[in-house]
Amino acid sequence: MNDNNTMNPESEVLSVYWENDRLFFLDQTKLPVEVIREEQTSVEQVWDSIKKLKVRGAPAIGIAGAYGLYIGARSFGALSAGEFMTKLQETADYLDSSRPTAVNLSWGLKRMVRTAAQAAGSGAGSDAILQILKEEAEAIHREDKDLCRGMGESGLPLIREGMGILTHCNAGALATSILGTATAPMYLAHEKGISFRVYADETRPLLQGARLTSWELQQAGIDVTLICDNMAASLMASGKVDLVIVGTDRVAANGDVANKIGTCGVALLAKHFGIPFYVACPSSTVDMETPSGRDIPIEERDPEEVRNFGARRTGPEEVKVWNPAFDVTPHELVAGLITEKGILRPPYSESLKTLAEEA
Amino acid sequence: MNDNNTMNPESEVLSVYWENDRLFFLDQTKLPVEVIREEQTSVEQVWDSIKKLKVRGAPAIGIAGAYGLYIGARSFGALSAGEFMTKLQETADYLDSSRPTAVNLSWGLKRMVRTAAQAAGSGAGSDAILQILKEEAEAIHREDKDLCRGMGESGLPLIREGMGILTHCNAGALATSILGTATAPMYLAHEKGISFRVYADETRPLLQGARLTSWELQQAGIDVTLICDNMAASLMASGKVDLVIVGTDRVAANGDVANKIGTCGVALLAKHFGIPFYVACPSSTVDMETPSGRDIPIEERDPEEVRNFGARRTGPEEVKVWNPAFDVTPHELVAGLITEKGILRPPYSESLKTLAEEA
Repeated sequence: MNDNNTMNPESEVLSVYWENDRLFFLDQTKLPVEVIREEQTSVEQVWDSIKKLKVRGAPAIGIAGAYGLYIGARSFGALSAGEFMTKLQETADYLDSSRPTAVNLSWGLKRMVRTAAQAAGSGAGSDAILQILKEEAEAIHREDKDLCRGMGESGLPLIREGMGILTHCNAGALATSILGTATAPMYLAHEKGISFRVYADETRPLLQGARLTSWELQQAGIDVTLICDNMAASLMASGKVDLVIVGTDRVAANGDVANKIGTCGVALLAKHFGIPFYVACPSSTVDMETPSGRDIPIEERDPEEVRNFGARRTGPEEVKVWNPAFDVTPHELVAGLITEKGILRPPYSESLKTLAEEA
Repeated sequence: MNDNNTMNPESEVLSVYWENDRLFFLDQTKLPVEVIREEQTSVEQVWDSIKKLKVRGAPAIGIAGAYGLYIGARSFGALSAGEFMTKLQETADYLDSSRPTAVNLSWGLKRMVRTAAQAAGSGAGSDAILQILKEEAEAIHREDKDLCRGMGESGLPLIREGMGILTHCNAGALATSILGTATAPMYLAHEKGISFRVYADETRPLLQGARLTSWELQQAGIDVTLICDNMAASLMASGKVDLVIVGTDRVAANGDVANKIGTCGVALLAKHFGIPFYVACPSSTVDMETPSGRDIPIEERDPEEVRNFGARRTGPEEVKVWNPAFDVTPHELVAGLITEKGILRPPYSESLKTLAEEA
C-alpha cells in the first residue's frame, strides 16, 4: 500500500486500492449491507464498475480510470510504440464512455494518454511507455491524497473537543482516494484523539449520507449519528450542532457554491442558529469562468428517484415531481472555503482570485 | 352518503365511508400502490384495521372507533339494558386497546358509552340504545366534517389564483372525515375554480407526504408536485412558493406548534424567504394547559425507521440514529392559526385565550 495513505492502512473504506500492481474497488452499490472489495483484472471490468457506480465520486473515478487504462495497456501484447499509442487512445475513449459527464474521468484519461504520447515522441518503446503509464496513474492517485490531506489540515483547527458537526451527502473518503473533502478535517481530528460527534443527513433521494457517509465514519470509529434531512432544524435548535462542513461540485468566482440538493437549506438554517457553515473544496473545484451561482446549470433528475424509495413505490405513479440534483448556496452563507491551501474567507471574489493567480 | 360530505361524493379518498348502515375504510397501508376500500363487518375487524394503520389520523380514528363500537353492539343479540351496557363497556375497552395513545379514539369511545349510559339511565331498552349509538357515531362523523369545512372556509381567502402552496406531512382528508385540516382551504379553493399549485414534502421517515398527501390531492384533480424534504429551500429560492399551510398535533397556549418532524425547518425557511407560514388547527387541538412548546414532550421513534425503508436496509445496521417524530415551531414563525372559527393572529397568548373563553 502506498505510504502516503496514512488514514488507516487496514481500513476497508478505500474506494480505490492499489497494491503490488493489483487494482481493487470497494463495491459502493452494495454498501452498507455488504462490504465487498472486487479485484479489477480487465479494462472491460473497470468500465463496467464505473458504469454501475461501484466506484463513484469525481476524484475516485479519475483515479479508477487512470489505473483502468494502465490495466488495459498491460494486455496489449507485443506492439510497436505507434500501434501501442493507437490502441491506448481507443482504450481511453472506451473507458471515457462509461460515464460521459464525469469531468475527472475524462481529465485523468487525457493526462495518461498525453504522458504516454510524450514518451512515445521521445522514442520510448511500448514496455517503457507501459511503465510510465503505471507511474502516471500512481501520481494521479498520490496527488489526490495530497489534496485531501491538505484540506484536512486546513480544516483541522475548526474542530474542537466536544463539538457536534453536521454534514450533508457524501463528500467522504469513498468519493476520493483517502479522507474525502468535507470529512478530511474530521478524520484528522479523530487521528489526533479529539472527541466530537458527527450528524450525517441521509440525503434524499439517493441516500448517500445514509448508505455511504454514516458507514465510512462508523468504520473509522468516529461517533456518527444518522438523521433524516428534515431533522436538521430541530437538531440545530436543540444546540447539538456547532459546525457544518459540506463538499461541493463547483464554486463560482463570487464564492457561490453548488452542491447536492439540500445544502442550501442546511446553510440557511445554520445562519439562523448562528452556526458556522464551511465548504471543503480542492482548488480544482473553483471555476473562475462561472461568475456566480446563477450561472451554474442545475441538473434535474428522473422523477422515479422521488416516487420510489429503493425498489418500493412510495408516491403515486403519475404524480408530478421536482427533482433537482443540486442547489446553490449563496456565498453570504459560507463562513469559509476549506482548500488544500488554507481556508479562504470573504470576500470570496478577492480570495478566490488570489487562489487562482497563485495556481 | 351523508349530505354533509360535499367534497366529492364519488371520490375514493374518504378514509371512513358510511352508507346504509355499512362501514368501509380505505386501506391507507396500501396507498398509493393499491386503492382498496374494505367493508368492516365486525368489531374485531375494526380493531385490526386501526391497529394496522389501515385507518389513521387522529380525527379519522375517532370516527372509526365510534362506528366500530356501534357495529360491535349490533351483534350483541337479545340482552337487557344492563347486560347491554356491560358488554358495551367491554367492547369499548377492547377497541381502545388498538391504539392506546390515540386521544381521539379514546375520546370518541367514551362519548359513545356515556350517551348510551344516559339512555339506559332514562329507561331505554337495548334496541333503543343501539339506535342512539348509531346516531351518536353519525354525529361524531358529522361534527368532524363541520370542523374541517370550517377550517376550509377560514383559510380560503389565503389562496389566490396562480399561487404555489407548500405543505408538509398529511394533514389531509385521509386523516379526517373530509377535506382535512391543512388541505381544507385547498379543496375549497379548488371547488371554487381557483387555479393554484401544491408542493407536497415527502416527509421522511414515514413518507406521509409521498404516500398520502400527493395521492389524495391528485385524486381530487389538484395540481400537486411531490418533492423531497430537502428540496423546499431551493423551491422557495426559485420563487415558486407563496404560502405554506401545515397541520398540527398540539398548539400550546403561547401559539407554539408541535407538528411532524421537519415542520420547524420549513417555517424557518419560509421566514427567510418572506413566505407566510400558516397552521390549520381545529380549536380542539389547542391545549391551554401547555404554556409553551418547551412543555410539549417529543416522542422519539424506532431508529429502524431511518435505517431502513420497507424491507430494504439503507443505513448501517448498528449506526446511531436520532429519530424525533415531531418538532416545535416557535409562535414567532406562525403568520396565523386557521381554526374553524376564523384565522387567529398574534399575539397568540391573547387570541388563543379568547378562543378558549368563547368555547
